Amino acid sequence: MRVPMNSKSVKKVVLAYSGGLDTSVILKWLQTTYNAEVVTFTADLGQGEELGPAKEKARLLGIKEENIFMDDLREEFTRDFVFPMFRMNAQYEGCYLLGTSIARPLIAKRQIEIAEKVGADAVSHGATGKGNDQVRFEIAYYALKPDVKVIAPWREWDLTSRTRLIQFAEEHQIPIAKDKRGESPFSVDANLLHSSSEGKVLEEPWDEPPEIVWQRTVSPVDAPDRVTEITIEFERGDAVGINGERLSPAALLTKLNALGKENGIGRLDLVENRFVGMKSRGAYETPGGTILHTAHRAIESITLDREAAHLKDSLMPRYAELIYNGFWFSPERRMLQAMADASQASVTGEVRLKLYKGNTIVTGRRSPNSLYSMKHVTFEEDQGAYDQFDAQGFIKLNALRLRLGAMAGRKGGEL
Amino acid sequence: MRVPMNSKSVKKVVLAYSGGLDTSVILKWLQTTYNAEVVTFTADLGQGEELGPAKEKARLLGIKEENIFMDDLREEFTRDFVFPMFRMNAQYEGCYLLGTSIARPLIAKRQIEIAEKVGADAVSHGATGKGNDQVRFEIAYYALKPDVKVIAPWREWDLTSRTRLIQFAEEHQIPIAKDKRGESPFSVDANLLHSSSEGKVLEEPWDEPPEIVWQRTVSPVDAPDRVTEITIEFERGDAVGINGERLSPAALLTKLNALGKENGIGRLDLVENRFVGMKSRGAYETPGGTILHTAHRAIESITLDREAAHLKDSLMPRYAELIYNGFWFSPERRMLQAMADASQASVTGEVRLKLYKGNTIVTGRRSPNSLYSMKHVTFEEDQGAYDQFDAQGFIKLNALRLRLGAMAGRKGGEL
Amino acid sequence: MRVPMNSKSVKKVVLAYSGGLDTSVILKWLQTTYNAEVVTFTADLGQGEELGPAKEKARLLGIKEENIFMDDLREEFTRDFVFPMFRMNAQYEGCYLLGTSIARPLIAKRQIEIAEKVGADAVSHGATGKGNDQVRFEIAYYALKPDVKVIAPWREWDLTSRTRLIQFAEEHQIPIAKDKRGESPFSVDANLLHSSSEGKVLEEPWDEPPEIVWQRTVSPVDAPDRVTEITIEFERGDAVGINGERLSPAALLTKLNALGKENGIGRLDLVENRFVGMKSRGAYETPGGTILHTAHRAIESITLDREAAHLKDSLMPRYAELIYNGFWFSPERRMLQAMADASQASVTGEVRLKLYKGNTIVTGRRSPNSLYSMKHVTFEEDQGAYDQFDAQGFIKLNALRLRLGAMAGRKGGEL
Amino acid sequence: MRVPMNSKSVKKVVLAYSGGLDTSVILKWLQTTYNAEVVTFTADLGQGEELGPAKEKARLLGIKEENIFMDDLREEFTRDFVFPMFRMNAQYEGCYLLGTSIARPLIAKRQIEIAEKVGADAVSHGATGKGNDQVRFEIAYYALKPDVKVIAPWREWDLTSRTRLIQFAEEHQIPIAKDKRGESPFSVDANLLHSSSEGKVLEEPWDEPPEIVWQRTVSPVDAPDRVTEITIEFERGDAVGINGERLSPAALLTKLNALGKENGIGRLDLVENRFVGMKSRGAYETPGGTILHTAHRAIESITLDREAAHLKDSLMPRYAELIYNGFWFSPERRMLQAMADASQASVTGEVRLKLYKGNTIVTGRRSPNSLYSMKHVTFEEDQGAYDQFDAQGFIKLNALRLRLGAMAGRKGGEL
Repeated sequence: MRVPMNSKSVKKVVLAYSGGLDTSVILKWLQTTYNAEVVTFTADLGQGEELGPAKEKARLLGIKEENIFMDDLREEFTRDFVFPMFRMNAQYEGCYLLGTSIARPLIAKRQIEIAEKVGADAVSHGATGKGNDQVRFEIAYYALKPDVKVIAPWREWDLTSRTRLIQFAEEHQIPIAKDKRGESPFSVDANLLHSSSEGKVLEEPWDEPPEIVWQRTVSPVDAPDRVTEITIEFERGDAVGINGERLSPAALLTKLNALGKENGIGRLDLVENRFVGMKSRGAYETPGGTILHTAHRAIESITLDREAAHLKDSLMPRYAELIYNGFWFSPERRMLQAMADASQASVTGEVRLKLYKGNTIVTGRRSPNSLYSMKHVTFEEDQGAYDQFDAQGFIKLNALRLRLGAMAGRKGGEL
Repeated sequence: MRVPMNSKSVKKVVLAYSGGLDTSVILKWLQTTYNAEVVTFTADLGQGEELGPAKEKARLLGIKEENIFMDDLREEFTRDFVFPMFRMNAQYEGCYLLGTSIARPLIAKRQIEIAEKVGADAVSHGATGKGNDQVRFEIAYYALKPDVKVIAPWREWDLTSRTRLIQFAEEHQIPIAKDKRGESPFSVDANLLHSSSEGKVLEEPWDEPPEIVWQRTVSPVDAPDRVTEITIEFERGDAVGINGERLSPAALLTKLNALGKENGIGRLDLVENRFVGMKSRGAYETPGGTILHTAHRAIESITLDREAAHLKDSLMPRYAELIYNGFWFSPERRMLQAMADASQASVTGEVRLKLYKGNTIVTGRRSPNSLYSMKHVTFEEDQGAYDQFDAQGFIKLNALRLRLGAMAGRKGGEL
Repeated sequence: MRVPMNSKSVKKVVLAYSGGLDTSVILKWLQTTYNAEVVTFTADLGQGEELGPAKEKARLLGIKEENIFMDDLREEFTRDFVFPMFRMNAQYEGCYLLGTSIARPLIAKRQIEIAEKVGADAVSHGATGKGNDQVRFEIAYYALKPDVKVIAPWREWDLTSRTRLIQFAEEHQIPIAKDKRGESPFSVDANLLHSSSEGKVLEEPWDEPPEIVWQRTVSPVDAPDRVTEITIEFERGDAVGINGERLSPAALLTKLNALGKENGIGRLDLVENRFVGMKSRGAYETPGGTILHTAHRAIESITLDREAAHLKDSLMPRYAELIYNGFWFSPERRMLQAMADASQASVTGEVRLKLYKGNTIVTGRRSPNSLYSMKHVTFEEDQGAYDQFDAQGFIKLNALRLRLGAMAGRKGGEL
Repeated sequence: MRVPMNSKSVKKVVLAYSGGLDTSVILKWLQTTYNAEVVTFTADLGQGEELGPAKEKARLLGIKEENIFMDDLREEFTRDFVFPMFRMNAQYEGCYLLGTSIARPLIAKRQIEIAEKVGADAVSHGATGKGNDQVRFEIAYYALKPDVKVIAPWREWDLTSRTRLIQFAEEHQIPIAKDKRGESPFSVDANLLHSSSEGKVLEEPWDEPPEIVWQRTVSPVDAPDRVTEITIEFERGDAVGINGERLSPAALLTKLNALGKENGIGRLDLVENRFVGMKSRGAYETPGGTILHTAHRAIESITLDREAAHLKDSLMPRYAELIYNGFWFSPERRMLQAMADASQASVTGEVRLKLYKGNTIVTGRRSPNSLYSMKHVTFEEDQGAYDQFDAQGFIKLNALRLRLGAMAGRKGGEL
């Protein structure tokens, strides 16, 4: 075992605490190894669990009342993290809607705010040493409080097997739920945007994920054999209502999640590239986010200028990579966000969709700011809106450099 | 009417001839307006029509036997155009698989080859003056034969209404199929990769496309309520077999089209941005291509290095734009292709997919060249393959510039 | 000759009028060909010519007093066009500081403002049909007033030789300066940022430009053999003073021009790629801009975060291309500007430079917002600011994907 | 002190050995700390030092004859590393020609080749734990031999002050040159492409580097007051001759270095961003490389298609960053190289330059593959090569989306 980095110097540490077995063990381990005062922070990010039991458990483990922090962050999460990200149509490696990645900076931000408030000198989290989450948490910590001490127990301790973890829990009177004694067949993260599963039964990428892995959506096969039609309303790039009913960001995402869930929408089985250098396989469920992503692209399709849209598309992979890698709180993410946000001023209007057995089908889009001009595009007589003769000059000058190349012996764009 | 550009000087013109009413009128119009010898070229690109009738019709319209050219280009089209494009995972504006765009350069290339062979000084096509296809045809013409004369009848003539077109046809004894007398409710392009529909009933982007528009796929709703499981084999980035059966490129795409069609896969209703500056609405069906795209991404997910994949992703929008805009035969497309092709040397292996009512679901991927290392990613004890302690230094140095920024007063990556 | 597009319909036209022979001929030609009321607009953009004579000449040619517009735009030009562009360190094709390109949108903007004010339905300019300036003027016109009629005489008229131009001038009593009777050996554009020369004696790219071409700078060879040392002060990305003296944007650029001129700084002999598809050769002089560009990069080097700087660098070529091609008034330029401007909040401080016979040498930079940390970088003992051991983990995880590749047989990053 | 990572297991280690004091101490330290057999590798990369003394010293320190490796890598360095990089016009952060960065992968490659040959299980280098070089060496090691053990003494040992280093040397009978007893006022790296200086007297970025720092070039002020004119010949993107004399890559670079040196060309004083997260200040001298870079851009300016050139420009910052960060042996660098190399097929011809007191001035370029068409660009009558009327359609369709935007209320490209 390596010597914990800052073992002597930590006085008070803010732990991202879920109330589950692992973070309860961490809590105790921080107390015993670092002899530090532990402050717990538990957030409701829409993971679908009550916060009450976590509070109870923290008390039980000896945390002082003033050191127990709980927050309902669902609105902030959706409004200030999910929605800005969706303005960029972010997808990591062509598919992944970044549900886990986008939650980490907010948790880290609250931990640091609490650390400043209670005068803590350290923060701690329960992410492992192989994954991306440790990076996302810690980069955010350092960016927000550069002198903070970071304790990542999974990288430090010797509780490297389930048996030893359970043993440590028993030795320290940490209650253990019955179903937590054995190894879990996979590991789960959830919030209002998505659920992800990794590990164990998912480790062989040739094997199909067992149905039990999917917890947030019904299978397309089991989804009802009927079409659900909905309309989503957008204002300046953000969704603001469904079927004419104005909703808060979190309420809107919650409703889209319900719609997606029952229609088998938003499953993804992906082998992805982690920032730490290895490939991993994940099973993701983003029911509402999948619908929202499709709808956002559709409203942009009639309201965004071509080059504005293409500029966004060309920078999207970079933006998604930044969020995946944990650089939400970075100058470069802020710069790209400034660019993206500037583009959304006119992205207002409605999108109509059909949801059906895994499919999200756009069937209509309209906007007071539409740039779609039927007058120009029509196959009918256009009363002079567009002069077809212009196309000749347009083509000839676009082709001129290629003609000059061909005259110089480089036909067909050869080099 | 504007004076046709080169009216006096054209001697022999190679026309991209489908055998349909429009290109038959063009044929006659070229003869009468330009007094030019017309050479017809008709290609089988998998559009699903026999070439025989086009030959008959060309003869009927007075084209000499040696001036009638027909080619089955399905293999060349798939092998040298579709597959290279799929190596880049090209999608225009996030969704469109470029089925029409990719066929134009090949038709143009054959027209120019024929022009060189028969000593023609001009080429002609039936694309309108508002669309992208005129650009794609003509840029390819100019890049391949910089001194060629290009005749684009739709930009030149005065047959601007259906009535006048029919009248011209009647005056010149061009046979008119009964169903062609009236206006078509939409316009169609088809080849082995896709079918597209545009215009008329599709012009209002708030209205759902009528079912009649979809000609190449069944609706997800009407697709059978059963899962079809298939495996696609890849070698060096290209699909080479299905379910263990080795197939030529065109045969493989044909089979995927059948599989996609019956499972309701590959429909897209899109408002897109044309190169000529307006937005238009199209209904696209790319059944086999949709499956192929998904499978290609999946085989890359285990065989391609992270940064290789991200580099491709970052340049994909530019590559797709080039093809959409008609720059297949350009130095920049060739350079990007060289980069993409270089990346595919190890993209070999198998992908297993479930097809079900519009869904293409990856359920497994494996490869002799897999970079996925279970040893590294495992939640189990990894026998030292990965030292979790390394993550600390990795994170700390990745965060250093942000910490220095925060120390200088710019917390959280502020600028 | 082609029929002028809108010959019948133009009532009042705002002409970008320099007072020179060419635009005087255009003025008269507009009156006679279009029978239109002509409004002249003459701007001081720092080209180094008095506006008075242009006014006189306009009167002489029969322009009504209320139709003669003159503006000193030097401050607006520098503040709202040159400085924003320099925030992005824009250089076209690696070298060119875009002196002509950046002036056109401002002239066009004022023409349109005047057109709106006087109720003109058309605008006109004196740029030729082969160059970039016609594109820059007209794209700006259309973007600002989409229904405007544009008259580009050089593309329309038949005064295609110097002889005929002179003859037309004589027929219409246009005064002709003696030195304008013959062909000019090259063509010049100038404003506060630069002077450019093109054509004739410069057309052979193997021949060195004759010294007469350079009008704005002394040759490095002739510059004094002494070093001039200056300091430039920046605030939020813009230069605000020289040697401690606070100056307005235009005054600052004027002073830098004088410094650059006498020290032989800012000459460029370039073969560049025009937007219209051909290569051309230009001789550019940007004395003050060259110093400013170097200084701006230097102040950014200590105040800008690495990834912020790299993001800017990666988008700079695209931004420069947009300005070169005439897309200043476009959504994509505005989006990139929003990104760049966001980055400049802390770009404040001082840069010291030596100017010497063509060289601009940075010798020092300092800032209250400096991110340069001597404590971290020092070769001396750093009291724990940086833990060298972190580098091991940083390197190992950065190398992990390459190690996994090598284990799979792809050594040295082979594909 | 931290425990050296692999202390028990190292049997034989290949050390990048310069023969200087530092690497001699490392040699001894490896023997004593790791009890390992040390193999020395000394390369001539054009750093301007004889290899003989290093051999002597290795013998003196007890290295067996068969364990002493020396190579003259100047040709390989220039041909396979420098020239490919110059094909991309690589400059890090807008200025730096990457002289140190590009040498590291070659040294690492040879070390690994030697390790394979002699059956060594480890490699070692003398780079510090704060810099980029450690990263460049080690990433190359791992990419080429994924199971190699890496020993970076500066990160491990406790010889953290000059005093202790000297003391260790004395204790182990390592000869110490007189001028090495005190602290050097700065640290130097040199090879055929450049010399760099860092640290100590350079650490304050507001202070001008003392003249003593510059070792490779005379000052522009001291350079002779006369113009030297040269011609450089290129073939397929690489320089192959000077003034008509064909030269090997290394001979050519050597000659350009001499020309640059005497004319005061290639100095750079830069604050740059290191990969490990801090800013540092360097003084670089790249005399020949600066001339070569300018000349290469000039020959490209007439032989490369516009979009080919712009594509290269847009990816250059990424490519330069890869090399700076140490990813020469990576799939992404290879992919970008494939793209760049593909572009150079026609980059053949001559460039004429004037060298004068720090200035490198292009005065002419010509090529059998020139794409510059005087016929098209001329101000004179062009006999129909270019139809100015085409520009109208070109502009109108390029502006169409902006006009549609303005009609929708978004004037001037507003969003």
